[in-house]
Amino acid sequence: MGKHILIPVDGSDQAHEACEFVAENSPDSDVTLLHVINPAEAGYSVQAGLPTFSEEWYERQKERAEEIFEEVEPDLAGGDGTVTRETEIGKPTNTIVEFAEDNGVDQIVMGSHGRSGVSRILLGSVAETVARRSPIPVTIVR
Amino acid sequence: MGKHILIPVDGSDQAHEACEFVAENSPDSDVTLLHVINPAEAGYSVQAGLPTFSEEWYERQKERAEEIFEEVEPDLAGGDGTVTRETEIGKPTNTIVEFAEDNGVDQIVMGSHGRSGVSRILLGSVAETVARRSPIPVTIVR
Repeated sequence: MGKHILIPVDGSDQAHEACEFVAENSPDSDVTLLHVINPAEAGYSVQAGLPTFSEEWYERQKERAEEIFEEVEPDLAGGDGTVTRETEIGKPTNTIVEFAEDNGVDQIVMGSHGRSGVSRILLGSVAETVARRSPIPVTIVR
Repeated sequence: MGKHILIPVDGSDQAHEACEFVAENSPDSDVTLLHVINPAEAGYSVQAGLPTFSEEWYERQKERAEEIFEEVEPDLAGGDGTVTRETEIGKPTNTIVEFAEDNGVDQIVMGSHGRSGVSRILLGSVAETVARRSPIPVTIVR
């Protein structure tokens, strides 16, 4: 009887670790890979003084999400459950916790750091905030 | 092939949740239940102005540890692995992480709050610090 595990993925090496952890520890789980597109990362155009959250930027992020899914999905090969890909737009921490709550997720498994993490010893702010707010178990891998 | 899972236990309800999580998700794991006796909790005697870390206090804490183990161990019943009880003296966060490192622990599973936790929404300081410092995966249950 499989659980539903949510793995937030962002293109970091630690997202691979998270997938490998699930493949090893919960091979019969249904997995949702969630990539969150963060509009805050679109930045601002200095010249125009306007947000650069453009249709083009968004399309590039969606393509990037697919590349990320392609990269990590093989880590889950051999499991018995389904693997679903989801892309959401929003602030990563809120989006991850809300997705988990709204979709019957039993456990969140994520890396301690995302792409911008600089240290293996410190807990990244996204992982920390998800661990703080999540009403369901959160596993933090390294 | 069982993993070695460390469950820090302190007499809180959440330690039960941690044990139940392991029983359900990793029934073939070897489990170490670790109770940390914190000398800082011995407090000070106002009258004497001296630390009350006495032999009597320590003996009471060791008895309390055994009571805690008796309380939670049934939660692990039905698993295939061994259950080991360990009591250590020290600062809980350091002691938990060092024990894990020194004893080939594969994963730490713990409640988000200990006995003194006041809110289900906030991550307790022990869980947060363990999650920050642990080089191995940490699962935080609620």
